[in-house]
Amino acid sequence: MTEATGQATQAVIAAKAASRELASATSDQRVAAIVAIADALIARSDEILAANALDLQAGEAAGLEPALIDRLTLTTERVEAMADGARTVAHLEDPVGLEVDRQVLENGLKLRKVTRPLGVVCVVYEARPNVTIDSAVLCLRSANACVLRGSTTAEHSNRVLATVASEAVAEAGLPAACVSLVQGGGRDELRELGTANGLVDLIIPRGGEGLKKALETVATVPVIYAAAGNCHVYVDASADLGMAERIVINAKVQRPGVCNAAESLLVHQSVAADFLPSALAALQAEGVELRCDGRAAALAGSGVTVVAATDEDFATEFLAPVISIAVVDSLDAAIEHINANGSGHSEAIVTADRTAANAFEDRVDAACIYVNASTRFTDGAVFGMGAEIGISTQKLHARGPIGLRELTTITYLVEGDGQIR
Amino acid sequence: MTEATGQATQAVIAAKAASRELASATSDQRVAAIVAIADALIARSDEILAANALDLQAGEAAGLEPALIDRLTLTTERVEAMADGARTVAHLEDPVGLEVDRQVLENGLKLRKVTRPLGVVCVVYEARPNVTIDSAVLCLRSANACVLRGSTTAEHSNRVLATVASEAVAEAGLPAACVSLVQGGGRDELRELGTANGLVDLIIPRGGEGLKKALETVATVPVIYAAAGNCHVYVDASADLGMAERIVINAKVQRPGVCNAAESLLVHQSVAADFLPSALAALQAEGVELRCDGRAAALAGSGVTVVAATDEDFATEFLAPVISIAVVDSLDAAIEHINANGSGHSEAIVTADRTAANAFEDRVDAACIYVNASTRFTDGAVFGMGAEIGISTQKLHARGPIGLRELTTITYLVEGDGQIR
Repeated sequence: MTEATGQATQAVIAAKAASRELASATSDQRVAAIVAIADALIARSDEILAANALDLQAGEAAGLEPALIDRLTLTTERVEAMADGARTVAHLEDPVGLEVDRQVLENGLKLRKVTRPLGVVCVVYEARPNVTIDSAVLCLRSANACVLRGSTTAEHSNRVLATVASEAVAEAGLPAACVSLVQGGGRDELRELGTANGLVDLIIPRGGEGLKKALETVATVPVIYAAAGNCHVYVDASADLGMAERIVINAKVQRPGVCNAAESLLVHQSVAADFLPSALAALQAEGVELRCDGRAAALAGSGVTVVAATDEDFATEFLAPVISIAVVDSLDAAIEHINANGSGHSEAIVTADRTAANAFEDRVDAACIYVNASTRFTDGAVFGMGAEIGISTQKLHARGPIGLRELTTITYLVEGDGQIR
Repeated sequence: MTEATGQATQAVIAAKAASRELASATSDQRVAAIVAIADALIARSDEILAANALDLQAGEAAGLEPALIDRLTLTTERVEAMADGARTVAHLEDPVGLEVDRQVLENGLKLRKVTRPLGVVCVVYEARPNVTIDSAVLCLRSANACVLRGSTTAEHSNRVLATVASEAVAEAGLPAACVSLVQGGGRDELRELGTANGLVDLIIPRGGEGLKKALETVATVPVIYAAAGNCHVYVDASADLGMAERIVINAKVQRPGVCNAAESLLVHQSVAADFLPSALAALQAEGVELRCDGRAAALAGSGVTVVAATDEDFATEFLAPVISIAVVDSLDAAIEHINANGSGHSEAIVTADRTAANAFEDRVDAACIYVNASTRFTDGAVFGMGAEIGISTQKLHARGPIGLRELTTITYLVEGDGQIR
């Protein structure tokens, strides 16, 4: 075993022991630990910013792109935002011990189905150091021990943030190992965490397709992928075209680097000639590159530059001011295209036709389906879940935003007075 | 690609297409298909029994154990029981399209969280041919296409049963590929089904540890293990000892070959001398082999034969009239022993002390926790779920009985009038 291997194993063993103690802690104790983290973030922000400066220095020396440098950067305001976020999570309803079902069986057995913590949740993430704190507090609120595995890019920042959190938890009277960070070791370490059956109850990878693929082939513990969003806006035959243009522009340009941004525009052939000239010009005016199929390209006005779209473009999450555009023959063709190319994240139809809306809702296979609204609303806070640890595009356990409730499991408690079968 | 490889791939591709059509079928259409299966089982029972005779012949020639031959055997009564089971499932509440949450967001967006079919469910199972029909009807009721992968032992029986089901579904107007069977190819085929990402939405292996291990290392699609039960009965210091004896005997002997049978008995040291002499004699009288730790063995009366238990015995699901027995120092020691050795299935405490019961409920990590009742009640039908496709011992998505609701996912449907962010 390498040193890194030993470190990850030790971390999950300690986390498992801590998780048993955490499961017995009261909601108030967990809230106090989160508030202690928020206070410590403010009190120790100089230390945090100094560590972050080292990562930024290294990142600049390594020639990281400006967008990555921005994600990596912490400021006084961003540290305060982390603390505020922690306080918000502290005040969300306790997701543990909720009674979701209660029955008395014919034989007199009293059965209750109650929510419980998962145990040890491992979060694997990339550049943004605030994920360290966000993950730790969501796990603490749901009484899960958290093992964090950040990227080397944010090594110094993550180490200080995890230490601040872990020490604050210990000062609040809970085991320090409720929050721990493992770093280094690369893919071997990922394999080790992903095969820690009986110790790790869930791994949540937050990152690109590379991370997903790396885990998919090795993981034997349960995984929820907070994965890519190849989201579509479909403009139906009966759409209000002004509304459709506002929605597609918002979905594409308001924040192109996030998973609920639109990556593809589909237009019903009967409205393409009315809709596309104006929509293409408006998208281009917002600085969006237009990758069009033949029929869409033919409708671009003079002064609008389009690129011929490849099949690959329709399957790509650009996370950038780029959009793929196709004209489709029918609602059915749009649904088929989305089910073939989408990633099951967020899909929108713009239509004035209730039947078309129903068909789209019934037959599109995705976590979130929008009728006459932007895909950008897929978000745990927007959906009233308070906060989220990512957006799941898989169907098991959590689909859509992964909030506190999704970080729990259930147990059946069955009480009797001697019943036998 | 081998022929078997081709067969499995073709089956899941056809199942995926069928699942899209099935998702649009009404509840009544799905009920009609299940009733058609029940009718066809009765109408074609001669054909089914003839195929089963071939499997029995081969099984006897291969020297299968009597217990396995029994599981493999179909009779007129057993075929009728399958048909009755199908009719019961047909009349359960439709689990698809249930609204589990509804809100109007501040911006006026109407959000509904509704249940949806998973898509394609693959069930991998061993000897018992009735699983073919049970799985098919549970999947149909939840609008999932079902790909069955039975064992070669039941090859002829499974093939006829799957054909009967598939043809009945087609006669009822739904795609025949809603039910399909793949056989042969062994572990390669398992790998193929387990890596059919985007086609298979869930694999449920029903079988022993060998099957679990075989899938665990290859599967990249979501898996729910309907796995082993190493279930304990713990007799606490304050237990009603008569009740405790009745519970441990029921849990051990009423049906030793099932996953919710008890495999291990733990006794608090303060009542061991009062409880064990009688309990050991009673278990032996029922034909149970007693594998005892030193303290338990010392309390066996004359005429009671005990075997020295190994660590391995305490970690084993015997599925046979064998029980491991230990005396523990305290409730804490019992909980620790269970969390270290149990499989997270069903765990019982016998106690008159509410505080002890609460501690056991809070700290034991299992799907079902019993206070003063037998572990044998863990069952979808008993828990009011109508039927089950197995018992999950994992924490994600389904824990405990896997019923119709557990065969669904959710989708957020969000409707607006042009909202953008």
